Amino acid sequence: MTSCGTKSGGKQPSGRDITSAVKILGIDPGASRVGWGVVERIHGSDPKAVSMGCITTEKNTALDLRLLTIYTAIDRILTQNRPDVMAVEELFFGKNVTNAMQVAHARGVILLAASQRGLPVVSYAPRTVKLTISGTGSADKKQIQRMIMRILHLPKPPSPDDTADALAVAVTHAYTNRFKEKRS
Amino acid sequence: MTSCGTKSGGKQPSGRDITSAVKILGIDPGASRVGWGVVERIHGSDPKAVSMGCITTEKNTALDLRLLTIYTAIDRILTQNRPDVMAVEELFFGKNVTNAMQVAHARGVILLAASQRGLPVVSYAPRTVKLTISGTGSADKKQIQRMIMRILHLPKPPSPDDTADALAVAVTHAYTNRFKEKRS
Repeated sequence: MTSCGTKSGGKQPSGRDITSAVKILGIDPGASRVGWGVVERIHGSDPKAVSMGCITTEKNTALDLRLLTIYTAIDRILTQNRPDVMAVEELFFGKNVTNAMQVAHARGVILLAASQRGLPVVSYAPRTVKLTISGTGSADKKQIQRMIMRILHLPKPPSPDDTADALAVAVTHAYTNRFKEKRS
Repeated sequence: MTSCGTKSGGKQPSGRDITSAVKILGIDPGASRVGWGVVERIHGSDPKAVSMGCITTEKNTALDLRLLTIYTAIDRILTQNRPDVMAVEELFFGKNVTNAMQVAHARGVILLAASQRGLPVVSYAPRTVKLTISGTGSADKKQIQRMIMRILHLPKPPSPDDTADALAVAVTHAYTNRFKEKRS
């Protein structure tokens, strides 16, 4: 597995008010790839990217071992970034229910990692995230990548799209400010 | 939450061959109730019930907190019983996909608890379990409870049915002897 985390080059605003800063870990859960991104929202300023990455697991590895990989990586990300809240994309089950079931297993261990630390968890529907980030609920992955690059002042679109989607969930939370309002 | 575990009154066979004994933890995952049962299979003799119970969580509690309850209880059961293998019922998603998704979250943290200890995990479809225990793939819950009471020489049918189903999965594994053959 890989958890290709990178630190963002975004500058910290001067005169930062620590008390009003909220660090949000956004998660885009998947069966073989889990995107993640940490965003800091400081009152009165744009959200800033802190770090981001994508946890990948091998499709032909047994599910229980893949879950262990995902849990271990999320636990390390929580230790390294110490977020105030986890924002996770809700599951969308279209035609491929079997795949959605595997994603739900992964989402389970991600929520567990948060609850073991007493971290609040909030959920956002994919459509809400797209609407918040791009103004349309039907935005495609490239649109989301471009909009996240622009919003977070990144040098290039976050890649893979799982990472961009995770940052999008975190930014959605930063914008809608529902801290502690809704769980899992 | 409660994890109403009980020790079985089943006698240990004399002249037991420790080296050929396999202790199986059967799990019937659910969104609000997780049945569990430990069965010991000793070569050449009927499987014996060791302990059993049901983990319950409150439906109106946030999912992340319920997952923590389930994981903590499973982890304690693993510590207390030290099984050689975990046999888990596969997910059946009928009309209620939303409920199946919650069960998949729970199943995820259960598989994680096993993989963290390097415990092999095997899966059985509900129909396979019913067929193995009762001879018909369409057996109802009461039939399974009665058959499990008979097979394991229990004084009464295990209750709730989630506990009986968990013992049924463990007995299915004891009968089919697929130890280490198939994961999660």
